[in-house]
Amino acid sequence: MGDRSYDILVGHGLLADVSAWLRPIGLGSRCVVITDNHVARRYGRKLLAAIRDGGYSASLALLPAGEQAKTLASCAQLYNACLDAKLSRDSFLVALGGGVIGDLVGFVAATYLRGISFIQIPTTLVAQVDAAIGGKTGVNLPRGKNLLGAFWQPRLVICDLDMLRTLPQREYRSGWAEIIKYGVIRDAELFGALEKFLLDEAEIRGRKRFHTLPAEIVARCCQIKADIVSGDERESGVRALLNFGHTLGHALEAATNYKKYLHGEAISIGMVAAAKLSVKKAGLPPADAERIRSALDSAALPTEWPKHVPAQKILCAIGFDKKVRAGKLRFVLARHLGEAFVSDAITQEDVEEVISAAREGGPTKSMTLALRV
Amino acid sequence: MGDRSYDILVGHGLLADVSAWLRPIGLGSRCVVITDNHVARRYGRKLLAAIRDGGYSASLALLPAGEQAKTLASCAQLYNACLDAKLSRDSFLVALGGGVIGDLVGFVAATYLRGISFIQIPTTLVAQVDAAIGGKTGVNLPRGKNLLGAFWQPRLVICDLDMLRTLPQREYRSGWAEIIKYGVIRDAELFGALEKFLLDEAEIRGRKRFHTLPAEIVARCCQIKADIVSGDERESGVRALLNFGHTLGHALEAATNYKKYLHGEAISIGMVAAAKLSVKKAGLPPADAERIRSALDSAALPTEWPKHVPAQKILCAIGFDKKVRAGKLRFVLARHLGEAFVSDAITQEDVEEVISAAREGGPTKSMTLALRV
Repeated sequence: MGDRSYDILVGHGLLADVSAWLRPIGLGSRCVVITDNHVARRYGRKLLAAIRDGGYSASLALLPAGEQAKTLASCAQLYNACLDAKLSRDSFLVALGGGVIGDLVGFVAATYLRGISFIQIPTTLVAQVDAAIGGKTGVNLPRGKNLLGAFWQPRLVICDLDMLRTLPQREYRSGWAEIIKYGVIRDAELFGALEKFLLDEAEIRGRKRFHTLPAEIVARCCQIKADIVSGDERESGVRALLNFGHTLGHALEAATNYKKYLHGEAISIGMVAAAKLSVKKAGLPPADAERIRSALDSAALPTEWPKHVPAQKILCAIGFDKKVRAGKLRFVLARHLGEAFVSDAITQEDVEEVISAAREGGPTKSMTLALRV
Repeated sequence: MGDRSYDILVGHGLLADVSAWLRPIGLGSRCVVITDNHVARRYGRKLLAAIRDGGYSASLALLPAGEQAKTLASCAQLYNACLDAKLSRDSFLVALGGGVIGDLVGFVAATYLRGISFIQIPTTLVAQVDAAIGGKTGVNLPRGKNLLGAFWQPRLVICDLDMLRTLPQREYRSGWAEIIKYGVIRDAELFGALEKFLLDEAEIRGRKRFHTLPAEIVARCCQIKADIVSGDERESGVRALLNFGHTLGHALEAATNYKKYLHGEAISIGMVAAAKLSVKKAGLPPADAERIRSALDSAALPTEWPKHVPAQKILCAIGFDKKVRAGKLRFVLARHLGEAFVSDAITQEDVEEVISAAREGGPTKSMTLALRV
């Protein structure tokens, strides 16, 4: 991305050395670290100390944890924190947290003094492999999520895998949905490695796995995301591939008021549905669709479409989804494992069929059972 | 500016044909026209009709007139107007008004759905020759002006000179400060033409001049601004030249609480001071400094530093000015008419001297009198 290129660091124990990574970027001496109450308790003081060690003047601004903080009012509060810290055009912000913090801090960085630098230090798996990379920022309005935003690239992304150890199980699994997605849309070899890793993980539902997630997997996901994004910074073409499973996943999140599912859980269910649509409309071998479902299942992610959500609610949610252009549903489908494309061949009826088949415990479930015997 | 390039149209009667200019850009079918109460009364209905003539669906969103509307709260109100009109990513906004409307609408366009297209239809002279071009957008915070913003280019700028006829005299003259600035920083020939035009205008203080402002002058100013901006979109270098007279001008506006002077009036006084500093530190011939002052005076702009503003207030205001980097005052000086450069040779003492000399009715005034005899 030319002069907007940046490094993504993946590894262990990176937090302590953060100023060594900051120095070569040539930022000014002032910064504000923005995080939420939960993350601050564990990592706030440690990060501040590490930044100050490098001679930077740093202060901390706190937000409540959770999606409800992603508002314009929070932005106004953060702008004041920037002014209190006398941040000028060469100062920078540090986003320490999950996707909510990254989205919000990115937006504030994009708009304070017409744009200042910012650093991403994602603390969740989904933020490390997805949200922190690519420069999408976002703020919610009362009438919808991410209705505000800007494309604004960070100057550095630091994925310290040690921070995943304190991540709740559900959050961790949620990140796996995006990891598996990268295999499906871009890298059959990665997909194979993920399947093997998930099978090998005898203790997949225990805490032990937090220590064993290979840096190579996270790094490969970051690389795929970065490759796709750098080819399409403003989301006009290939970047859409990243939405595999997301059209239905987002609809499911919206239809359940963002309460029942974490993002990755809804995406997991959406990917299973997208795989079925791919079988029907894009020639994806049914065995590959099952491998996708099975991998998600091995990561302890939900794969069944819920019975209680009315199809009408989903169709309605898709209708208001930003991914609909000029009345056409644009779906990302997989031709085979490792290759996805954008299709406008999916009709409302196709979607209804996938949803109702799942609800009746029909073809999908039996296929699944047959293959798992 | 590559794929961010856009046309700037300057002429008479353009408003009625707006959809002919919109069509080739290939925008979606929905838009919201944003303007203020004053402008809406004269041009709102006419513009809406002209846009709808082209088959676009257009609605109107109104803000109160004046700088006090340039807030995050206004943005929130405009985001709701966008949602009410069901604007999607290929929709667009139309900014119909002066600098405040342009800055605010540009910001909303830059941030709604991570950025949608917008069109500038500037209705004041200062907006036509300056604010509407270059992609700077801005929103005020309670603690300062333009503390928020983004660089976001319009897709089209339409300068309809007929709209200047309804502009109050003071607003019109304010625009002349920027016009004269372009001559000083970039184009000695333009400066000569301006001097001649101002002398020829026997009725300079009457309404007649509104009919005689040549489109060539406005177009040349737009071109200079566009040239400078396209060479430095994000304001890291040459774009600073546009700030000739602005460091002191902004300080004067701030020190008088933005009440005493219109922007162009403060800039006029700031340019006279910058010309004096240029004589002292950059070898500008004193006769050229006087030509600058005299041209501003001919446009009925103030050129005398006010006696009642304490120097300390000005120095303080400069200290908080975004143009100060790493403790150094960066001043734009003129080497000769038509060529400006950025200097860091100006000390606090130099500034104090210029201010106090003016206040004592000292050297400047006598020089002026001598030359005007």
